[in-house]
Amino acid sequence: MSELDPGRLLDRLDTMAELGRTASGGLTRTAYSPADITARNLIARWSTLEAGATVRLDAAANLIAEIPGTRPELAPLVMGSHLDSVADGGALDGTYGVVAAVEVAAALQRSGRPLRHPLRIVAFANEEGVVAKPFTGSLAITGRSELIDVGETGPDGITLSARLTAAGGDPAGLAGAGWAEPVAAYFELHIEQGPVLDAGGIPIGVVTAISGRRRAQVVIEGRSNHAGTTPMDLRSDAAVAAAHIVLATEAVAREGHTEVATVGTLRLRPGNANVIAGHAVLSVDIRSVDDARRDRALDELGRRIDAIAAATGTTITVTADEGSGAARCDGELMNLIADAAAGLGATSVELPSGAGHDAQHMTALGPVGMIFVPSVGGISHNPSETTAPADLVQGAEVLLAALRRADDR
Amino acid sequence: MSELDPGRLLDRLDTMAELGRTASGGLTRTAYSPADITARNLIARWSTLEAGATVRLDAAANLIAEIPGTRPELAPLVMGSHLDSVADGGALDGTYGVVAAVEVAAALQRSGRPLRHPLRIVAFANEEGVVAKPFTGSLAITGRSELIDVGETGPDGITLSARLTAAGGDPAGLAGAGWAEPVAAYFELHIEQGPVLDAGGIPIGVVTAISGRRRAQVVIEGRSNHAGTTPMDLRSDAAVAAAHIVLATEAVAREGHTEVATVGTLRLRPGNANVIAGHAVLSVDIRSVDDARRDRALDELGRRIDAIAAATGTTITVTADEGSGAARCDGELMNLIADAAAGLGATSVELPSGAGHDAQHMTALGPVGMIFVPSVGGISHNPSETTAPADLVQGAEVLLAALRRADDR
Repeated sequence: MSELDPGRLLDRLDTMAELGRTASGGLTRTAYSPADITARNLIARWSTLEAGATVRLDAAANLIAEIPGTRPELAPLVMGSHLDSVADGGALDGTYGVVAAVEVAAALQRSGRPLRHPLRIVAFANEEGVVAKPFTGSLAITGRSELIDVGETGPDGITLSARLTAAGGDPAGLAGAGWAEPVAAYFELHIEQGPVLDAGGIPIGVVTAISGRRRAQVVIEGRSNHAGTTPMDLRSDAAVAAAHIVLATEAVAREGHTEVATVGTLRLRPGNANVIAGHAVLSVDIRSVDDARRDRALDELGRRIDAIAAATGTTITVTADEGSGAARCDGELMNLIADAAAGLGATSVELPSGAGHDAQHMTALGPVGMIFVPSVGGISHNPSETTAPADLVQGAEVLLAALRRADDR
Repeated sequence: MSELDPGRLLDRLDTMAELGRTASGGLTRTAYSPADITARNLIARWSTLEAGATVRLDAAANLIAEIPGTRPELAPLVMGSHLDSVADGGALDGTYGVVAAVEVAAALQRSGRPLRHPLRIVAFANEEGVVAKPFTGSLAITGRSELIDVGETGPDGITLSARLTAAGGDPAGLAGAGWAEPVAAYFELHIEQGPVLDAGGIPIGVVTAISGRRRAQVVIEGRSNHAGTTPMDLRSDAAVAAAHIVLATEAVAREGHTEVATVGTLRLRPGNANVIAGHAVLSVDIRSVDDARRDRALDELGRRIDAIAAATGTTITVTADEGSGAARCDGELMNLIADAAAGLGATSVELPSGAGHDAQHMTALGPVGMIFVPSVGGISHNPSETTAPADLVQGAEVLLAALRRADDR
């Protein structure tokens, strides 16, 4: 018999889905918004009432719930994720991991078999990066507050500093939010946001690593000319060069130079049907769990782009960012999660995470394990984001079982 | 010795360039605007004073200048082009042909050797189609006023009907603007607006035909998904499908299925660097001097697009318009223009016009001849549109010589 209350887990996910619901049925609960603060307050209430937690806000407005263990001298076990969403996103991204963590803690409380380790639940602030650069909460907790620009303004012109203050944080005190002590293990339960588990009919994913990313802006200068009067052999068509780059980007990944590579934005100028494009700008997003491999893939793409420029008579400039580094999950925790799943009769598969998560920063404080559950159709950041209720329940049960196993180590 | 006054031709082109000049040095003289009406008034004045013309406006607000011939029973010889421009266009497109026609008529008047045929100069209204669909003037004169929608509103919300009335036309009387009688020959002198003459160092182009065009809107439906979490083999990427279509469009022309084919607009949705495009819309513009060839090229592209849809797992819809038909220039007039050029010591080359011109409609009333002069760098519809002064003068001299030869036939 499960120690969890599966009905309450699902009910509470439904409750959270109302906080920031949009007309389209999606969720707009951007970081530090009233809906985000309300969601955090509910988590605080449930943690206090049902898990015996003491809750506090830190300077980044992270909500931290502490539950004592029987061996206070041990490093804490930590569970967490985030409550904020993208604009018109889904109800499970982040929220599932926080709500499940509270239910796991409540189940432990009810069980009469407390953990040896202190237990900590974190609802990280601003994971999504809609109103300011992402990961404000996890950067602060892992002692990298120097990467947070409190003067950054969002699309509404409001500074992060003002948002933090309104949400109960302390923009001047971010450095003090860093955790001095290491953690025994950090677990994050999350929807996959990709199609692998759903396509394979596998209920549990054991995350091997969180991909690093580099992004490049590619600017193409050709010659804008009349589409009727300019013979094909006298053209310097930025749209044609851009098309070659889209396919070269795809090919670099399909040929195995990296895991995934994507052109998601592409703009032509002047953008008239009867004018050859003289100018194009596109984005390249390249990801890998291996930073060196990702960098080599970007170099390979750069060589192909040089050849495209020569072949199309265009001038092409590639400006790449420094990117974010990949983060490896802990091998022992991966085994422990797979064993926990097997103990519950659930099959699991190892897979990398192509999306970023607070877990990638938490590797700075100790071993990290991430558990994925299937996203139906692989859809996320979209109102139609969903996961089968049975999978949501099973994911939480695996989190609970993994936590017990980690406590027993 | 030339009969023309080359200095006055160039001076008057400079004068016309001031009417609608923009801050960028370009020309915004959209149809029926005050600058367009002022330009027309100048043409009326010069025609009356120096060419002995009687001028009138028709219901489409075309300016028509009539100069008697010695044989009034003959069908008229006609010269024309337009005075309106695109937004921030160049000073020569259209205007050159009208100003040169007036100078040719003035030279004839000065010469004491009048033509046998009546001579008519037309400044066609709204060739460019910025404020309403193009060719208002030439459609009216050629008796196709049913294709003119006087209720059409421009970007400023003003109807064509209101514009016509303000410019001295008669929106209710457009059907009466059609010419009942055929013309002996129609000549249009125009800048090439393409790079062929300039690249070849050839001063005179003898236009063989004005290309017909078809335009298609291509809509691609893929699946929008996370750029990090979606493996390459589970993607249905609208940007990749669009890139294949851009290259297939280019290939259809380069392989010789038609003369030119262009993708000038391409939009991706949602258009985020970290999201696979689920939706793309692009334009295809295909032109040929042979309508059947152009239609076969579009069919060939359609077959390739079907294959692209299958290969990329996308759904692609192609919606093609009926297009505009190609118009052949008259073979005898082509020979006559080439002979006139040769008689002036100017080399010439036959070439098609990829752009549309009032001449394409005038084929309905009789034989048409078009003379091109070089566009430096092939640039047009742009403030930097220019032609060497010597080429402008030589083009007008060829027009004059061709007109004399046509009068002698």
